[in-house]
Amino acid sequence: MQIISNPSRETWASLLERPHINSQNLTAIVDEVLCRIRQEGDNAVRAYELQFDKANLTDLQVSEAEIKEAEALVSDELKKALQIAKENIATFHAAQKHTLPKVETTQGVTCWQKAVPIEKVGLYVPGGTAPLFSTVLMLAIPAQIAGCQEIVLCTPPNAEGKINPIILYAAQLSGVSKVFKIGGIQAIGAMAYGTESVPKVYKIFGPGNQYVMAAKQQVSLHDVAIDMPAGPSEVAIIADETAKVGSVVADMLSQAEHGKDSQSIVFTTSPALAQALVAEIDAQVAVAPRKDFIKCSLEHSKIFILDNMDDVVAMSNEYAPEHLIIMCKDYASVAEQITNAGSVFMGYYTPESAGDYASGTNHTLPTSGYAKAYSGVNLDSYLKKITFQEITQQGIQKLADTIEIMAENEQLMAHKFAVSIRKQ
Amino acid sequence: MQIISNPSRETWASLLERPHINSQNLTAIVDEVLCRIRQEGDNAVRAYELQFDKANLTDLQVSEAEIKEAEALVSDELKKALQIAKENIATFHAAQKHTLPKVETTQGVTCWQKAVPIEKVGLYVPGGTAPLFSTVLMLAIPAQIAGCQEIVLCTPPNAEGKINPIILYAAQLSGVSKVFKIGGIQAIGAMAYGTESVPKVYKIFGPGNQYVMAAKQQVSLHDVAIDMPAGPSEVAIIADETAKVGSVVADMLSQAEHGKDSQSIVFTTSPALAQALVAEIDAQVAVAPRKDFIKCSLEHSKIFILDNMDDVVAMSNEYAPEHLIIMCKDYASVAEQITNAGSVFMGYYTPESAGDYASGTNHTLPTSGYAKAYSGVNLDSYLKKITFQEITQQGIQKLADTIEIMAENEQLMAHKFAVSIRKQ
Repeated sequence: MQIISNPSRETWASLLERPHINSQNLTAIVDEVLCRIRQEGDNAVRAYELQFDKANLTDLQVSEAEIKEAEALVSDELKKALQIAKENIATFHAAQKHTLPKVETTQGVTCWQKAVPIEKVGLYVPGGTAPLFSTVLMLAIPAQIAGCQEIVLCTPPNAEGKINPIILYAAQLSGVSKVFKIGGIQAIGAMAYGTESVPKVYKIFGPGNQYVMAAKQQVSLHDVAIDMPAGPSEVAIIADETAKVGSVVADMLSQAEHGKDSQSIVFTTSPALAQALVAEIDAQVAVAPRKDFIKCSLEHSKIFILDNMDDVVAMSNEYAPEHLIIMCKDYASVAEQITNAGSVFMGYYTPESAGDYASGTNHTLPTSGYAKAYSGVNLDSYLKKITFQEITQQGIQKLADTIEIMAENEQLMAHKFAVSIRKQ
Repeated sequence: MQIISNPSRETWASLLERPHINSQNLTAIVDEVLCRIRQEGDNAVRAYELQFDKANLTDLQVSEAEIKEAEALVSDELKKALQIAKENIATFHAAQKHTLPKVETTQGVTCWQKAVPIEKVGLYVPGGTAPLFSTVLMLAIPAQIAGCQEIVLCTPPNAEGKINPIILYAAQLSGVSKVFKIGGIQAIGAMAYGTESVPKVYKIFGPGNQYVMAAKQQVSLHDVAIDMPAGPSEVAIIADETAKVGSVVADMLSQAEHGKDSQSIVFTTSPALAQALVAEIDAQVAVAPRKDFIKCSLEHSKIFILDNMDDVVAMSNEYAPEHLIIMCKDYASVAEQITNAGSVFMGYYTPESAGDYASGTNHTLPTSGYAKAYSGVNLDSYLKKITFQEITQQGIQKLADTIEIMAENEQLMAHKFAVSIRKQ
């Protein structure tokens, strides 16, 4: 954990650089797997499932019986928690529905935008040590609210060809149409191109390791849309002398436990807080599980001490964090000045983990500074806006001169004629 | 022009395939130019401008004097047309502003979304035979309405190092901050990485040839967001026996004149209309300029005759056209059933060229079937939505159990502790 005091503005960009990840050498394997999936479909998927997940699969799709079975294996306590989380996520995303008015831009010229669900979407949920069922809720619930007709979910099976029951329970709770036992690059390929069992989708969502991310970017060049590019998870915390040391450190560690390349950054005006954090970090790390992840990720984490809140806000906006926790007096007015962040957690009682699970906001957010241009996943991610226009006979008379002069100056005479012929 | 009657559903996908474009061999040149721009900045930009545009440039940025000079060269008639187009585009895009309500998902847990402008955006306007000033309006006006602080525009100069005056006039009319005399791959690289003269932007918009598109996709993998992938322009026309033959053909030709790989598709229930169209095409082509483009692009254009309007709508939705003109009785109810299209033009008096120039809708739209997942450029393209949440002391008590149970089941104990410590 480095403490850096009042760095000059010119050094901000380099100090805020994310840990570098070299993905060049992934390209060959990603290209090879995608190419085989496109050509050989289910047979290639099965071969890669055997190779990468050690699973010998006949049916790629999870059966009704398996879903029923899963339901019986999830505790009532967890079911209740999932239900509450579902309701909050649904409430927040449903409130994003809106209809824009029709606009008469010129007399007789009416234009409007209509939001239409993306018909088929694909969700990827990674495997690994723990079942990321919260990601199932975060990706599937807004898809269902948007009205997507086919919601396909791929997630890797274990060596016995089984999916974690909580994942399956969460999938059926949140309206997933079909679950497939497919992981990694082959899952992305199957959803991008379609196979005998897996429907081709129009947009792919969800996190994953470097291979999955590289595959998503590769298929996004020609075949499907993707939610956003993604790197390691990160949190920034804006804190002053009023911040609670224990809470700040708990938030740092909850980021750090995600993986070795996670990053926790603190921006503060208080040197005393910085010192107190260091001591508290040692205390909390000592009793934390996942010490190996946490220690490694704290190595590239930083505490910045800055002269004033203006610099704190400016440096945070330059970093553009995925998660931003604001724990200082006047946190509301600081929040007003935030221009680059994925999701902002305000005040002393708003941990990031609330948004990760159950407050209702989405946890699929732009990392690596992408928050400067990208939004996190939200209802709009599952919709496209089609524009419509209707012009009356009088309307085209009114607008004809304008269009004809512009078309002529762009030397597009057929464009001009399409108006002229309607005037007659 | 092929006429295809009642093709079976299984053949639709292959019949609707876009003309194939091989972009594999672009990668080497795109990578090389981008790499040099990143390393050498302005010097590399100048070298490529000399190589590709034959322009020997000292200053890359267009000066105040050049912009003043340009203003004097644009006719009053065209200025008036640009002003009307600007007002309509501004009216339609400003009407897309909306604020969503704050949502209390659980007592004491308040979540909301805030739209914040992308601070720096880059616009690309291609060169070529005609000055595409309409694209300047379409890309810059919504950026200004969104509140983007820096709006950078790159467009290639001619061999004398000059930009077309109408482009410059349109740029200052629509609030562009800085115009640079840079084209092609080097323009995309300069905006993606920044150089001594060109500011690094966070999102790049605009059309271009295959090199420009490949460069946009390349930089979008790591460095900036882009508006959307793009292929050749296309129109589909849904027409029945009530359609006006002259107008349908004029619309087909106004698409075909864009370039040799443009596509015009007609879906109709009327064999008589199909025959009439073929005769009228010959007549209109005979007197059209840009015959070489038009003839070539009509070669891969198609008229589909289908049994009924349901099939017409289904096949059009499968094609997912960039532009869709609906010229039939009950056009309003047909429009209601459209689920995949970039922009829809309804009725007998609504040519595509209205939307290309002046009705107010945007003309930067998803091609190549991307309309299944992408929206055209709209106000939201220049904004990102940040989520905010504030939880009270009571709120976190209410939500704590849910979060703790979920975190525990995902084996993320530090996530759980960040809640527990706030309960105490």
